[in-house]
Amino acid sequence: MRIAVDAMGGDSGVGTVAAGVARFLRENSEDVEVVLVGDEERIRRELAAYGSLGPRLAVEHASEEIQMEEHGAAASRRKRDSSIARGLQLHKQGKADAFVSAGNTSAVVAASLLVLGRLPGVRRPAIAAFVPNEKDGFVLLDIGATKDCRPTDLVQFAHMGAVYAEKILGRENPRVGLLNIGEEATKGNDLTREAFPLLEKSRLRFTGNVEAVGMFKGEVDVAVCDGFVGNVVLKFAEGLVAMILGFLKEEIARHPTAKIGAALLKPTLSHLKDQLSYEQYGGAPLLGIDGVCIISHGRSSSLAIANAVRTASRFVRYDISREIAKRTRAYDEVAVE
Amino acid sequence: MRIAVDAMGGDSGVGTVAAGVARFLRENSEDVEVVLVGDEERIRRELAAYGSLGPRLAVEHASEEIQMEEHGAAASRRKRDSSIARGLQLHKQGKADAFVSAGNTSAVVAASLLVLGRLPGVRRPAIAAFVPNEKDGFVLLDIGATKDCRPTDLVQFAHMGAVYAEKILGRENPRVGLLNIGEEATKGNDLTREAFPLLEKSRLRFTGNVEAVGMFKGEVDVAVCDGFVGNVVLKFAEGLVAMILGFLKEEIARHPTAKIGAALLKPTLSHLKDQLSYEQYGGAPLLGIDGVCIISHGRSSSLAIANAVRTASRFVRYDISREIAKRTRAYDEVAVE
Repeated sequence: MRIAVDAMGGDSGVGTVAAGVARFLRENSEDVEVVLVGDEERIRRELAAYGSLGPRLAVEHASEEIQMEEHGAAASRRKRDSSIARGLQLHKQGKADAFVSAGNTSAVVAASLLVLGRLPGVRRPAIAAFVPNEKDGFVLLDIGATKDCRPTDLVQFAHMGAVYAEKILGRENPRVGLLNIGEEATKGNDLTREAFPLLEKSRLRFTGNVEAVGMFKGEVDVAVCDGFVGNVVLKFAEGLVAMILGFLKEEIARHPTAKIGAALLKPTLSHLKDQLSYEQYGGAPLLGIDGVCIISHGRSSSLAIANAVRTASRFVRYDISREIAKRTRAYDEVAVE
Repeated sequence: MRIAVDAMGGDSGVGTVAAGVARFLRENSEDVEVVLVGDEERIRRELAAYGSLGPRLAVEHASEEIQMEEHGAAASRRKRDSSIARGLQLHKQGKADAFVSAGNTSAVVAASLLVLGRLPGVRRPAIAAFVPNEKDGFVLLDIGATKDCRPTDLVQFAHMGAVYAEKILGRENPRVGLLNIGEEATKGNDLTREAFPLLEKSRLRFTGNVEAVGMFKGEVDVAVCDGFVGNVVLKFAEGLVAMILGFLKEEIARHPTAKIGAALLKPTLSHLKDQLSYEQYGGAPLLGIDGVCIISHGRSSSLAIANAVRTASRFVRYDISREIAKRTRAYDEVAVE
């Protein structure tokens, strides 16, 4: 198996991606090869620090680079030889089995649609995040690929999320909830009210509306929402956690006793930080496209990159795309409006 | 000035509301009277614990009660003598200057529209929350009154939020942001993309799209979004904070050193909890209606109730509704589609 990795993606540059890939290759003795895609000279320079990484690593040159702040769709149409486009082409041509990028998310989504296309029967793709909670965590989707959804899109997302939960997380007959602001079927906005009966009719194990508190208590394995809502809540949570940690740090620095307390609490706090950190969860799959594409956080560390490559290998191994295609085809009566 | 308070509202019953009102009356020597609305017998029984609260407290009997889990709009049409309807009628008749409830939010919104009506020129009401951040906090609206919004609704919300920020929080020429998933004008969903140019044309100090991180850093005084998004993010944040605190508690109980650390950190943690707690911020005003209605959290403690009554008195004092009516009238060209 061979995973193409966007070397130019992410806020912290080629060095971090190279470090992540080196880490993955060292820690995983499996039969997974990596091809780093991007500015070959810069990649080779960064790789020099790691000595020989063996025959499992290759480099593929791409002459262009899409910046984080560029308009994703426009840039992916204009820059035909970007690391993103080139990596996806390797996948399309069968020279790679998956693509991983910590780059401009909307460029990755647009280029994936352009190069790989959608699975038959799928109207819109979705990005699925694994979110930790009091139990074993759950899948939240869409977190940003499709900002304006039709009710049937949410049903397709639910099927995709269920495949993820079942095949990757090992949840048998996963419970699917509709992210909402109340438990009754009549609650919510037009979108959720129309999606509710469609989800009830689906062959999924639909457990009804789920509120945030229920998600954190572990009431569902999959929660569906439109990509605007999913993106906003995740970023809100991120901002809040950052604020809480910053506030704690400041308060602790101010009080000598608190400083001792914090030192004693350090293992606990760092365990908490690990639990909440996206780094551990290794990237979010873009589901509904004809291939495997894993999107890693723009602020990915080398650990996050290594975990994203591992996630990609598992999506290839369990043939998630084919499973999604099977289900969306089987249930495509729902998808026809 | 006289504030009508729904005695039957909130998850923890008449006792908590009575305690909150007693607390308010004791701590505030100002010229504010309170009338508790609901089951007179139960109210008097609960009030007995507080001895004489003087002539500033009255009780108004209401024979019905709307439960937290009832369908708000239906219940408020059916139960004409609920504590909510009766309290709002007192306000409408001029026998009270404001109404405060920790009851069923959608019932309070529906009854307010029914009894008080909207301000001239306002199409939809919005509930505004004060949210703490790294600076002085900001106003987020709508957090649940209007789940499906038109672009012009967001413009009206922005005006209402600006009045709140200016008159109540003392922010001169408040900065208004559009809650979004990216900073560029082209980011977001159909609603935010259409609202953006309208906000630019408005006479508000519109600072563009704002992401969660920016809100927590203090980049805006007011952030606008539709009521579905606002409600989901607040509940998500609440669920997350509860999970973090629960996790910390569990970990601390497990490790003796951590236990000592936690004891030393206690003042810091309780200060943090205070900073984040809605109790401190005293209820969220329902804006755009012809009157003053403050909605308190369903899980309100007596402190939260006392602060909600204080908030109501400030909204009356600064005549916020008239100020909103003035501005939405002045800018009603925007409100016409």
